[in-house]
Amino acid sequence: MLIDDDTFVDVSDVTADFDEAFFGSGALATLGDVVAAKVAAGAAQPVAGRRFGAPFARPHQILCIGLNYRDHAAETGQAVPEEPILFTKSPNTLIGPDDDVQIPRGSRKTDWEVELGIVIGRHASYLADEAEAAEAIAGYVLVNDISEREWQIERGGQWSKGKSAPTFNPAGPYLVTPDEVGDVLDLAMRLEIDGVVRQNGSTATMIFSPAYIVHYLSQFLALEPGDLINTGTPPGVGLGLKPPLYLHGGETMTLSIQRLGTQTQRVIADPTAAG
Amino acid sequence: MLIDDDTFVDVSDVTADFDEAFFGSGALATLGDVVAAKVAAGAAQPVAGRRFGAPFARPHQILCIGLNYRDHAAETGQAVPEEPILFTKSPNTLIGPDDDVQIPRGSRKTDWEVELGIVIGRHASYLADEAEAAEAIAGYVLVNDISEREWQIERGGQWSKGKSAPTFNPAGPYLVTPDEVGDVLDLAMRLEIDGVVRQNGSTATMIFSPAYIVHYLSQFLALEPGDLINTGTPPGVGLGLKPPLYLHGGETMTLSIQRLGTQTQRVIADPTAAG
Repeated sequence: MLIDDDTFVDVSDVTADFDEAFFGSGALATLGDVVAAKVAAGAAQPVAGRRFGAPFARPHQILCIGLNYRDHAAETGQAVPEEPILFTKSPNTLIGPDDDVQIPRGSRKTDWEVELGIVIGRHASYLADEAEAAEAIAGYVLVNDISEREWQIERGGQWSKGKSAPTFNPAGPYLVTPDEVGDVLDLAMRLEIDGVVRQNGSTATMIFSPAYIVHYLSQFLALEPGDLINTGTPPGVGLGLKPPLYLHGGETMTLSIQRLGTQTQRVIADPTAAG
Repeated sequence: MLIDDDTFVDVSDVTADFDEAFFGSGALATLGDVVAAKVAAGAAQPVAGRRFGAPFARPHQILCIGLNYRDHAAETGQAVPEEPILFTKSPNTLIGPDDDVQIPRGSRKTDWEVELGIVIGRHASYLADEAEAAEAIAGYVLVNDISEREWQIERGGQWSKGKSAPTFNPAGPYLVTPDEVGDVLDLAMRLEIDGVVRQNGSTATMIFSPAYIVHYLSQFLALEPGDLINTGTPPGVGLGLKPPLYLHGGETMTLSIQRLGTQTQRVIADPTAAG
């Protein structure tokens, strides 16, 4: 696992992957001590160009909250929701933080969304309140909730169709535990396309907080250890620009959330596209 | 695994579960011979009251097609869709064919839907045509796509919120391979509540066929071995009755699709409901 941008420690003797069984076992609580002991013993290694995957395995489900920033709802011309809007992504959209993002075949409106992701730490159903929900959160992760707007909005009205193409959910590099993240509702967020700033916001304008969302969702479905919840995006997505602007092959996305690290993805063109 | 309603064969020496690895390995193709040899050797055992789970493990994803029967679209007051409408259920909704169905807390509109389910046999992305899609189908299964109509329709407009409560996806008893199912577009479907026939239809009125659906979905997302696709319901759901009628604790659902077997589920009341 990554310790910082330059250093990692091999923890394959602790767990084969950060999966449902790992989170469900509670082993995350002692991983910090294990890593500290390894570092003290000189086991830290330089990253030196290695590829890193997402900091957790393909989850049981990826849930997403729509329109959860006041200013983003406004830019897409939609009302601020009275309660969280739930939609989903296929779990096999998960990729590493710096992996390539593939524009899907036939897409004309592939868009970006920098988001705070919640990783669930235990089975959670009918949580009593937000305090219990906070205890069910294993940590936070930076995600790019890639979206095909025509498929999401214009092809039947149910959003999952435009959210689930392969490579549509870069996550990482870090899974940051609640005790290390600081105030989760005061984190700067930023996304650039080829160096041009497109999203420049803060989790401070989030409508429904992580604890609110986890408590709310647990009334409708059962969350499992390792589940990912993408909590919505601040203003500046391509759909909200006038005129709208979408991704093209060859572009580079660079995104970050304060304390959660930085991602860089190359955009790969639709191989079937003309020109 | 079940051979018929009265007989099963233990195949735990072949596979620990009918999961993504099992379907992806192609082992289903030879399972028939294995079972035939076991039966010839006298290994068949009587069911005799045993509980059976779904005939496949919790899948990577449960996808659902909305309004896929002409007459059902009409009864819910919606137009026949021009292309498949996609929504999802949480994979942990999967239960056995005769397991209890729990009305979730606070629900007032829990409803039934007898459906033909497709189980995917291999990784499937950008399938070339319906012929290739047909080859990606491992088999068919009877499912009850339980739905909470208020949460599905009136709580933000994205349907997954009303489709994902625990116990909301009974499946089984049989997984029937395409060579054994006969004409999949000519199967009688039936659902009764306490002996009153509520749904009495046929896959013949399906708008988009299984091969069409699998080809279509593979253009938007990647299907994995063992994925489940619920293909929509014929008329007669509670939402379509005038006045609407929903499930109550103590009721019994009995449903069947020709060649796919029969399910019987007891409905358990919301424990927090008054009276």
